[in-house]
Amino acid sequence: MDKYELGLDAIPANFEALTPLSFLPRSAAVYPDHVAMIHGEWTYTYSEFFERAKRLASALEKRGIGKGDTVSVMAPNIPALLEAHFGVPVTGAVLNALNTRLDAETIAFILDHGECKLLLTDREHSDVIAHAVKIANVDPIVIDIDDPGATSGELIGEMDYEAFLKTGDPDYAWRNPENEWDAIALNYTSGTTGDPKGVVYHHRGAYLAASGNTLTWQMSKHPTYLWTLPMFHCNGWCFPWTITAVGGTHVCLRKVDADPIYDAMGRYSVDHMCGAPIVLSMLINTTAENKAKANPGIKVMVAAAPPPAAVLAEMDQLGFDVTHVYGLTECYGPAVYCDWQAEWDEKSVEDRAALKARQGVRYHALGGLDVMDPETMKPVTRDGNTMGEVMMRGNMVMKGYLKNPATTEKSLKDGWFHTGDLGVIHEDGYLELRDRSKDIIISGGENISTIEVEGVLYKHPAVLEAAVVARPDDKWGETPCAFVTLRNGATATDADIIAFCRDNMAHFKCPKTVVFDELPKTSTGKVQKFVLRERAKNL
Amino acid sequence: MDKYELGLDAIPANFEALTPLSFLPRSAAVYPDHVAMIHGEWTYTYSEFFERAKRLASALEKRGIGKGDTVSVMAPNIPALLEAHFGVPVTGAVLNALNTRLDAETIAFILDHGECKLLLTDREHSDVIAHAVKIANVDPIVIDIDDPGATSGELIGEMDYEAFLKTGDPDYAWRNPENEWDAIALNYTSGTTGDPKGVVYHHRGAYLAASGNTLTWQMSKHPTYLWTLPMFHCNGWCFPWTITAVGGTHVCLRKVDADPIYDAMGRYSVDHMCGAPIVLSMLINTTAENKAKANPGIKVMVAAAPPPAAVLAEMDQLGFDVTHVYGLTECYGPAVYCDWQAEWDEKSVEDRAALKARQGVRYHALGGLDVMDPETMKPVTRDGNTMGEVMMRGNMVMKGYLKNPATTEKSLKDGWFHTGDLGVIHEDGYLELRDRSKDIIISGGENISTIEVEGVLYKHPAVLEAAVVARPDDKWGETPCAFVTLRNGATATDADIIAFCRDNMAHFKCPKTVVFDELPKTSTGKVQKFVLRERAKNL
Repeated sequence: MDKYELGLDAIPANFEALTPLSFLPRSAAVYPDHVAMIHGEWTYTYSEFFERAKRLASALEKRGIGKGDTVSVMAPNIPALLEAHFGVPVTGAVLNALNTRLDAETIAFILDHGECKLLLTDREHSDVIAHAVKIANVDPIVIDIDDPGATSGELIGEMDYEAFLKTGDPDYAWRNPENEWDAIALNYTSGTTGDPKGVVYHHRGAYLAASGNTLTWQMSKHPTYLWTLPMFHCNGWCFPWTITAVGGTHVCLRKVDADPIYDAMGRYSVDHMCGAPIVLSMLINTTAENKAKANPGIKVMVAAAPPPAAVLAEMDQLGFDVTHVYGLTECYGPAVYCDWQAEWDEKSVEDRAALKARQGVRYHALGGLDVMDPETMKPVTRDGNTMGEVMMRGNMVMKGYLKNPATTEKSLKDGWFHTGDLGVIHEDGYLELRDRSKDIIISGGENISTIEVEGVLYKHPAVLEAAVVARPDDKWGETPCAFVTLRNGATATDADIIAFCRDNMAHFKCPKTVVFDELPKTSTGKVQKFVLRERAKNL
Repeated sequence: MDKYELGLDAIPANFEALTPLSFLPRSAAVYPDHVAMIHGEWTYTYSEFFERAKRLASALEKRGIGKGDTVSVMAPNIPALLEAHFGVPVTGAVLNALNTRLDAETIAFILDHGECKLLLTDREHSDVIAHAVKIANVDPIVIDIDDPGATSGELIGEMDYEAFLKTGDPDYAWRNPENEWDAIALNYTSGTTGDPKGVVYHHRGAYLAASGNTLTWQMSKHPTYLWTLPMFHCNGWCFPWTITAVGGTHVCLRKVDADPIYDAMGRYSVDHMCGAPIVLSMLINTTAENKAKANPGIKVMVAAAPPPAAVLAEMDQLGFDVTHVYGLTECYGPAVYCDWQAEWDEKSVEDRAALKARQGVRYHALGGLDVMDPETMKPVTRDGNTMGEVMMRGNMVMKGYLKNPATTEKSLKDGWFHTGDLGVIHEDGYLELRDRSKDIIISGGENISTIEVEGVLYKHPAVLEAAVVARPDDKWGETPCAFVTLRNGATATDADIIAFCRDNMAHFKCPKTVVFDELPKTSTGKVQKFVLRERAKNL
């Protein structure tokens, strides 16, 4: 036997399961009096945060919740949901944060599929939840969160959250999971078609993703983090755990809008926040008075869709320090980031924005990132031009889809997670997304990236938002069709837009049709291209 | 079966072994042209560093080195040793970095005990190594490192390191270990008595310790790190891996002395370095011309012995940003650090130094840190006064001692690593060391911490270095005996020193005897108290 194996086994003294749950007791011990959470008039220190999480865990166990059970939460970014990120999984149960924009039917599907045992719900969502619980087959214990910021709704549960916490023991024995491969969270994809899929995260992956955020963002101790990103979206990209690890202050936010965002920035000296490009639009398209409230240099992590270069350039000029990241529910949120190279500082604003619009390189904890031909699994040429499917592998890839072995196997086959996104790898190794497989336009045999066309549209001064889809065409097969929302007070004709595109890109890629309209979005703020494709088909 | 287990196993797409070896290919891909290493006239970029590490791995494999084999290196902080931190373990072999200050007999013992198969040796150490290899039972392949900075010695091996690299394949297939519990390094404790013990590290622990350093030190990308800490000392506290993870520049250093340190600081804008308190003494006790070369704010991590508060205060005044850390070979180097609380900034220089002299709190990746009664394993009262043995547990505790199951079991019993260090826990949860178990003085039934007495001695303006040990005494059992080295040109009598102590601490703790002498040190710079105890006994 290998001398390096003999008598050198893992034992309690030298081995424990990796889990992001370990961050809370540590911060409570080292920074007991540091402010952990701010929510309106409420402020909780780290020792209070820890006590509340322990009470929650204990209260749950007293109601029979334990290993393998699912606890769902329907709430905006308020303390209860943050506390649930620790208090639920420490019992061995799995946290299922529900997308608050979903309808009752979808939520009922999720409650049933995830076999929800207990449900915490914010009062404002009582209508949808009451309906969902009624039509669902499961019969979860319902606890109300009677948040002072809720402006409507009823109490529909058997008890209020604060009263529920009081039933719990503040001396609950915090512990690690038995196995770091144990599930910690269940997140349903927003799926534009078909039933949502339940993505299962494990403790090891959540620990590595949460730690990875500190490296990517080069975070120092005690950041002040504003919760502009929904915690139900990939567990807030694991930031409930990241910010807690570095002893930061979570600034809660019920409603994501320019006024409350800038108010919080001014009041609490916010220095970090995350969000989809729509949040960047809010930051840009607001009053000068609002803009004056933000300290310069606020670090903003943006993802969910490739932000148009024009938006990035505006953020740059406003003094925000934007990091562009890319990920999917299946990889714990961001797993790829546009690592900024010092020499890019010398470039023009436009060039910097174009470089920053690329998705970039893998997190340290993501084992592999490549673009491949999905048939042969051969990497594409790194020329910034040859398209293939984005593939990921390693410790930041999900455990799999709940009760869906066929789809799990298919999406994790050949040693890689098949993202379904199309992209290219540039000569410098940076990934740039080109499209979802189903979004690509094929016109006269040429592939057209709708993201590329949208990038040009966003440069037009009158354009607030734009989305491009394929429109069936007898001659070309498909042609690009642009849906455009103009800025307040701006005007432009379809001919103006098309002329602008022809001045700025290959002619075959230019939209042949321009429609001025509001863009339909999913509950997580993604443009619903399948709706636009239907509209384009019927034009 | 639990629904969260079914069909959700670890497979190649979503699981890989944690290893710090993954940091090098990543940095080579993302920062290919960034300077990875500087050594005199030599400069290597990350892509060159990676190529050299691949060549080393391939060359080793061609000589039959593989899983479970031991490769020893006898060298100062030069590129070959840095490369060995990656190129050796990627083959499955284990890196054994030898302490360059050891004698031939001890090295022969280590080569035999570790079953060394291949040995890289710097020319300057050829005498000792030639002798060691001659008297050892093993017969390793010897490769010379003919470093241009070596000022003496012969070539005693069969080939030069650069020629050896040329035998390797630059396209070597980098890979993860089969198991993250596999051994990565073997480090012998310097042991003041008895045979050295071989501490075995594994890939998982090295990954977490290396990542932990970035969190503790709040490191940004691209630091410039000066190698003042020997890489043979707990693998340079894992910094070969840490600095590579964040794409930093390793500034090599053959000789740790004030002139070359300050030269490097000036020339390369060094911003990070580590070392024992002796390095701080070098930084303090030098010319004003030297001191002017350092940029303000250089971050210095110091450990190995509790630095006297007076030294910390001087470093503070010189503009260095000192982080005090604590660890042992058995926990990958530092695993505890004095996390600085913002409100301490308001304190006086002396109070700040006293706070900073405490060892502090655990790394995120260290599962537990406490001070306990080793008989009952009950934690001591957190009053800053009740002494007990420092205990650690979790992923930063070694795999165990090589071929020494009895000592492994004894030191890792009851779920904790028994450090053998004595300390107290303050009310705020911070650890402060009081002594090694065997160093404590018991005088008239009272425990006296020699560290505490030394802390007072260091405040005396004439004292350069001080060490206190027990002197046998008929009346008191033991009394404190101080060995003191005075600063250049300073004078003080034993009566002066004792009077100063009586003014600054409880009288029963004051030295009854003061001896002016040079302090004997181990090869890692620790004062050899057992030598002083012998001298005190014979006074």
